[in-house]
Amino acid sequence: MLLTELEQFIQEDVGADDTSCSIVPDTWVHARIITKEGGVLAGLEEARQIIEYFSLECESGFDDGDSIHPGDVVADVWGLAPDVLRSERLSLNFLCRMSGIATMTARCVADAGGVRVACTRKTTPGFRTFEKKAVRLGGGDTHRFNLSDAVMIKDNHIAIMGIENAIQTAQAEASFTKKIEVEVSNGDEMLSAALEGADIIMFDNMHPDEIRQCIQALDDAKLHNNIILEASGGINPDNIKEYAVTGVDVISMGSLIHSSRWLDMGMDIV
Amino acid sequence: MLLTELEQFIQEDVGADDTSCSIVPDTWVHARIITKEGGVLAGLEEARQIIEYFSLECESGFDDGDSIHPGDVVADVWGLAPDVLRSERLSLNFLCRMSGIATMTARCVADAGGVRVACTRKTTPGFRTFEKKAVRLGGGDTHRFNLSDAVMIKDNHIAIMGIENAIQTAQAEASFTKKIEVEVSNGDEMLSAALEGADIIMFDNMHPDEIRQCIQALDDAKLHNNIILEASGGINPDNIKEYAVTGVDVISMGSLIHSSRWLDMGMDIV
Amino acid sequence: MLLTELEQFIQEDVGADDTSCSIVPDTWVHARIITKEGGVLAGLEEARQIIEYFSLECESGFDDGDSIHPGDVVADVWGLAPDVLRSERLSLNFLCRMSGIATMTARCVADAGGVRVACTRKTTPGFRTFEKKAVRLGGGDTHRFNLSDAVMIKDNHIAIMGIENAIQTAQAEASFTKKIEVEVSNGDEMLSAALEGADIIMFDNMHPDEIRQCIQALDDAKLHNNIILEASGGINPDNIKEYAVTGVDVISMGSLIHSSRWLDMGMDIV
Amino acid sequence: MLLTELEQFIQEDVGADDTSCSIVPDTWVHARIITKEGGVLAGLEEARQIIEYFSLECESGFDDGDSIHPGDVVADVWGLAPDVLRSERLSLNFLCRMSGIATMTARCVADAGGVRVACTRKTTPGFRTFEKKAVRLGGGDTHRFNLSDAVMIKDNHIAIMGIENAIQTAQAEASFTKKIEVEVSNGDEMLSAALEGADIIMFDNMHPDEIRQCIQALDDAKLHNNIILEASGGINPDNIKEYAVTGVDVISMGSLIHSSRWLDMGMDIV
Amino acid sequence: MLLTELEQFIQEDVGADDTSCSIVPDTWVHARIITKEGGVLAGLEEARQIIEYFSLECESGFDDGDSIHPGDVVADVWGLAPDVLRSERLSLNFLCRMSGIATMTARCVADAGGVRVACTRKTTPGFRTFEKKAVRLGGGDTHRFNLSDAVMIKDNHIAIMGIENAIQTAQAEASFTKKIEVEVSNGDEMLSAALEGADIIMFDNMHPDEIRQCIQALDDAKLHNNIILEASGGINPDNIKEYAVTGVDVISMGSLIHSSRWLDMGMDIV
Amino acid sequence: MLLTELEQFIQEDVGADDTSCSIVPDTWVHARIITKEGGVLAGLEEARQIIEYFSLECESGFDDGDSIHPGDVVADVWGLAPDVLRSERLSLNFLCRMSGIATMTARCVADAGGVRVACTRKTTPGFRTFEKKAVRLGGGDTHRFNLSDAVMIKDNHIAIMGIENAIQTAQAEASFTKKIEVEVSNGDEMLSAALEGADIIMFDNMHPDEIRQCIQALDDAKLHNNIILEASGGINPDNIKEYAVTGVDVISMGSLIHSSRWLDMGMDIV
Repeated sequence: MLLTELEQFIQEDVGADDTSCSIVPDTWVHARIITKEGGVLAGLEEARQIIEYFSLECESGFDDGDSIHPGDVVADVWGLAPDVLRSERLSLNFLCRMSGIATMTARCVADAGGVRVACTRKTTPGFRTFEKKAVRLGGGDTHRFNLSDAVMIKDNHIAIMGIENAIQTAQAEASFTKKIEVEVSNGDEMLSAALEGADIIMFDNMHPDEIRQCIQALDDAKLHNNIILEASGGINPDNIKEYAVTGVDVISMGSLIHSSRWLDMGMDIV
Repeated sequence: MLLTELEQFIQEDVGADDTSCSIVPDTWVHARIITKEGGVLAGLEEARQIIEYFSLECESGFDDGDSIHPGDVVADVWGLAPDVLRSERLSLNFLCRMSGIATMTARCVADAGGVRVACTRKTTPGFRTFEKKAVRLGGGDTHRFNLSDAVMIKDNHIAIMGIENAIQTAQAEASFTKKIEVEVSNGDEMLSAALEGADIIMFDNMHPDEIRQCIQALDDAKLHNNIILEASGGINPDNIKEYAVTGVDVISMGSLIHSSRWLDMGMDIV
Repeated sequence: MLLTELEQFIQEDVGADDTSCSIVPDTWVHARIITKEGGVLAGLEEARQIIEYFSLECESGFDDGDSIHPGDVVADVWGLAPDVLRSERLSLNFLCRMSGIATMTARCVADAGGVRVACTRKTTPGFRTFEKKAVRLGGGDTHRFNLSDAVMIKDNHIAIMGIENAIQTAQAEASFTKKIEVEVSNGDEMLSAALEGADIIMFDNMHPDEIRQCIQALDDAKLHNNIILEASGGINPDNIKEYAVTGVDVISMGSLIHSSRWLDMGMDIV
Repeated sequence: MLLTELEQFIQEDVGADDTSCSIVPDTWVHARIITKEGGVLAGLEEARQIIEYFSLECESGFDDGDSIHPGDVVADVWGLAPDVLRSERLSLNFLCRMSGIATMTARCVADAGGVRVACTRKTTPGFRTFEKKAVRLGGGDTHRFNLSDAVMIKDNHIAIMGIENAIQTAQAEASFTKKIEVEVSNGDEMLSAALEGADIIMFDNMHPDEIRQCIQALDDAKLHNNIILEASGGINPDNIKEYAVTGVDVISMGSLIHSSRWLDMGMDIV
Repeated sequence: MLLTELEQFIQEDVGADDTSCSIVPDTWVHARIITKEGGVLAGLEEARQIIEYFSLECESGFDDGDSIHPGDVVADVWGLAPDVLRSERLSLNFLCRMSGIATMTARCVADAGGVRVACTRKTTPGFRTFEKKAVRLGGGDTHRFNLSDAVMIKDNHIAIMGIENAIQTAQAEASFTKKIEVEVSNGDEMLSAALEGADIIMFDNMHPDEIRQCIQALDDAKLHNNIILEASGGINPDNIKEYAVTGVDVISMGSLIHSSRWLDMGMDIV
Repeated sequence: MLLTELEQFIQEDVGADDTSCSIVPDTWVHARIITKEGGVLAGLEEARQIIEYFSLECESGFDDGDSIHPGDVVADVWGLAPDVLRSERLSLNFLCRMSGIATMTARCVADAGGVRVACTRKTTPGFRTFEKKAVRLGGGDTHRFNLSDAVMIKDNHIAIMGIENAIQTAQAEASFTKKIEVEVSNGDEMLSAALEGADIIMFDNMHPDEIRQCIQALDDAKLHNNIILEASGGINPDNIKEYAVTGVDVISMGSLIHSSRWLDMGMDIV
């Protein structure tokens, strides 16, 4: 992460006058970050950057994306005691939040049987880069980082300007380097989108059976071609397998990020 | 929130070249933010600020902290269509994330029967102010915002410098305006902390029975006085009631923030 | 533009102690921004934002993207004299630089006879958003805003990892929302790229005849399909017509931005 | 440049999710920055800072301000392939833009035969420091960096408050550490400025013959003294020699910056 | 200090185009920071960070908080001459300002005979962290860094909502981790504050005799307990001893910061 | 001041969680800023901007630079009580600090009998703009804002490169728009500086008699001309009159800023 970002995070956690850590004597200590739960590790690169910012040494036998198990020493930290304490909470907040997302993603990816699993723009404001990176480390797809990444035509666009008009306008005005994705809620919209040349069609809040029928209709109309098909809306770890066998290429889930819980880790002075 | 913060959040969500929204014609539209789930509303002040940044009008019959029910119109938005679309995701991300935290907090507060329910510094980096504000809107206590807010003597401090030394150093070096909180893991540490004059004693990862015995010992030693007692570690909605009857004044739970899920809301063009 | 950006630009132009403008009395004046050259107007939105920042009133009979002619009054400005002077240089720098780019773009677009004309990432550091916006106002295509907008596999990628490997890695690792563009320097590379499923193929520094032969070979191999073809490298206003008739879909030119000159405008107190 | 500035430039060019470079394996590579055109080198210090930011090694046999010739290796770069690619465009954008300005400046300086050649405040917003530095590396004078650098009394000042009043007010209100420059459009204004004690007089948009007559009049009035005389407005490489022999001390040209084109350079993996 | 802060300070002092230092040749020089006055050293950590930012070497036989005497070499600096000159003023501004505050604080602390001496929020905007740090280095107490550090109920609060209401509201709404301080102007307010459970009571602008009587009344009412008593308002080095013997625990003085003068130091090339 | 600056100052004073002000009910109040001491008003423009940032109304019968007397109502403020309290300290910190400087400056200016009184770069880091503005409001001269404002050749320059070399290098390398000032410590250095064409000569730490002799020598050598003469070093309100009659044009005093005390003002709810 950029140093300017890092310093904003540190300022948030340390505040104006850190007497909690400065009362500790300047002795040299060794601390360990240990995970209490198993999963997929994420946030190590960020934790290391934080730790090194405080002039501490950091070593780890793991890489981001590795599997970890309860009791694993995720990282060893050496340095002056006040600095070790100062780095503790922020580095853990990155590790626990990002590993939680990576772990949930990995489970969904395993259940999706080869279908891509993607997150959405439903992220914590200011922390999207790290949440999406965690999805990738868990084997998922990051989808759009922002409104500029690709053109997404959603229900509100369609309500305002109609589906054909929206797609044609996007083709005329957006750069040729961008894909055009269209969110549809039924077979008719899907066929319109396909006819107009959408690159990606997203089935929004549709039942697996409906999706299956739509794809059949698309095949029948010989419009499937290179169009990427995505299912989204109300998909969670419990029903992901039903969506994975509909024939879609991608399943996107806001819950990868907004409903994942933290992986429990702690830092202890040895 | 500060305008400089707001613009960072907007930059994250909009990116360099928002063709997703700019393809929409400049027609005047009316949109509604509707909640699909019930709970406690939070993030409305922030959503309003985001919406108004884009020169839109925003009205709501609710205030932050109010109860909301499925189907409630949380806010009405009027303005140019591209601007409405541009404000959609970011305002929802604030509303859904913060209302999710406020709602979970309110449930725990209800179960705690008058004992304060507090969050911790286990927050999403960069978003702490809003997460803690949501806890307050749900009736909870914000606890420390950063390392400077009060002196917290934790297990790692004790490992390095001993409990008496830590408290005495804090009393000498920290400003008299700050409370001193000590995290203890057994009755002996508790008595030491009380004797040295700690303002707050936190029982860390202890069973409700142990806590009850400790408090009894504190009463017996006539050291209870004005000391605030806090239970923390492994407390969740399932076991909070057991902790609430131990005699502690405060129950703190990282999970209020790190394990709460989003409240589902959406924005629709009318 | 964001207010935080605007204030950085103002700080650059005003400095710590603007005695040049503050010596002028607080009289109410009317000033006009007049163009001395004809072309395509760009930068008006930015100039207006700068002018209004200084509490001045700004009116214009033009919109960004309009044609302007020598002597046209691009905008009228009213307000206190020191503030008018303070806004002068910065608003003109936006107008002259952006209109210069838009004007050159419009000429190339006219010569390209329906083929898209795009710029590149060869931009002035810190000013890319505005330079690319000017290209769009001149009728051009903005191409990628940054390294994250699409995957571009260039000569250096191919030198390091080979063309097939690069495309396959991109397909596996990049989000499905991104297009993959491959820069090729001959027909063999082009066929490899097409076979591997590139979305865009860019002919880099090739003669129009070579490009024509390559496209013929692509058609013969029945691989043309939906692939977008782009010509780039050494294309300028003098030779653009030769590239426009090769059969490519897009012509990209760094010179739209890095070799365009300013359109001459001035601000005069009436 | 400041690290905070550098990170803004990097953020602009890299974006949120650089899959273009991250697909490349972490192999160690050697790359060369080679110039395709001759001229005066500028931007090397900045390119080096960018390259080193990405943990790469950078060596060069040149210094900023040196003459370079087609084919010269401006710098060698060693490091991990993804980082080399990440540094490529931004470092080239600095080198090509700044060397273009330095080269054009050097040509004008050569033609000016000892008369100083200066740029103006007609610069790209946000990039002025680097553009003016390039002028200096080409042997030119940077003139004012901002409105605070010296007091400049221009046509608009004179229209508002009259020339004598403007100069007297500046002498009274501006710090004694600043020079006072007055822009004049005829001999009468020049004499007024000289009588009032202007430090610098700038002939604005005047023909070389007019300027010569003015200087004669100034000499005749015995007011020339230490006043620095500057010609400005409509001066370009084609007519600079005519201005150079009028007797002025300085020739200032906005075109040094706003009409210079890039020097063509590229980076290649060896 | 954060690097982002440091660069803001440097930008303020160096400006856009530092020809004052860059005219000096790149020779290696040795400079000394020497104090002309005795006192308590503060700002050394900051000066060192500034000096090292400019790639200079810095050594000192002192630590912040040490006593210094006229003629002492506070630090030795080695490096390139232009960089030494560039670091001079800013590092001295930190040293002289902070040492001045630390020195005045130390004198007041000596006079207070064991009573804590604290500063207030009357600080220079943007420089509070450093001014309060200097107070601590002089042996003083930093008091609140900002409005969030503790709840302070002042005369204006009492005018608006009454003293009991204010304290009860604070107890209900503020986090249990914060102390509640009440500013009183007479014995009645003091008793109300004590009865409601204030943690700190501040006697505002009261004569030592009044304070003494109040404390007696508090003792008589058996309400003194753990309440910390603070005197504030109009206390200066001349009258501090009178307040120190009233029985208060803390004396707070805005003048520690806003009326201390600089300690005179200079930097000389050896 | 820029909004981005203002928000930094607010963040410093308010902190993360302002329970001090938020406990106050949202009643409409009227407050007055009243001065307890007389002097020259400064900081009103800044205080007004702060007050208006918090959506409060602000009116004043004074302008910056006006004389004020004990008891004067400097400004009336109306708005919601919590916002009034939130604006109090920061607006007072600007008013008291800046008015203190303006007041001391005005006294020195009165004593200087027509000789200019200037401040120096001995300012509080981050607050220079406001401190120098206060000097101007008190009738003083701001001198250089930063190292780029003019070329200042000081004792350390002379130690490194000699006085003639330094002046000649400055004339060759610095822009013609900048004055060259030379700090001298005796008559020989003064004559060298004058011969080389210095614009300003500063007598550094010299006795009034020495200065008088130097000026006599300069007149005798017929080198006085347009050179501005400045006395600096150890000048304070007690000895300023002695320097004012030596014949210098300017007296500069670091103490205007670094040794001025605050003017006492307060804000009271009516």
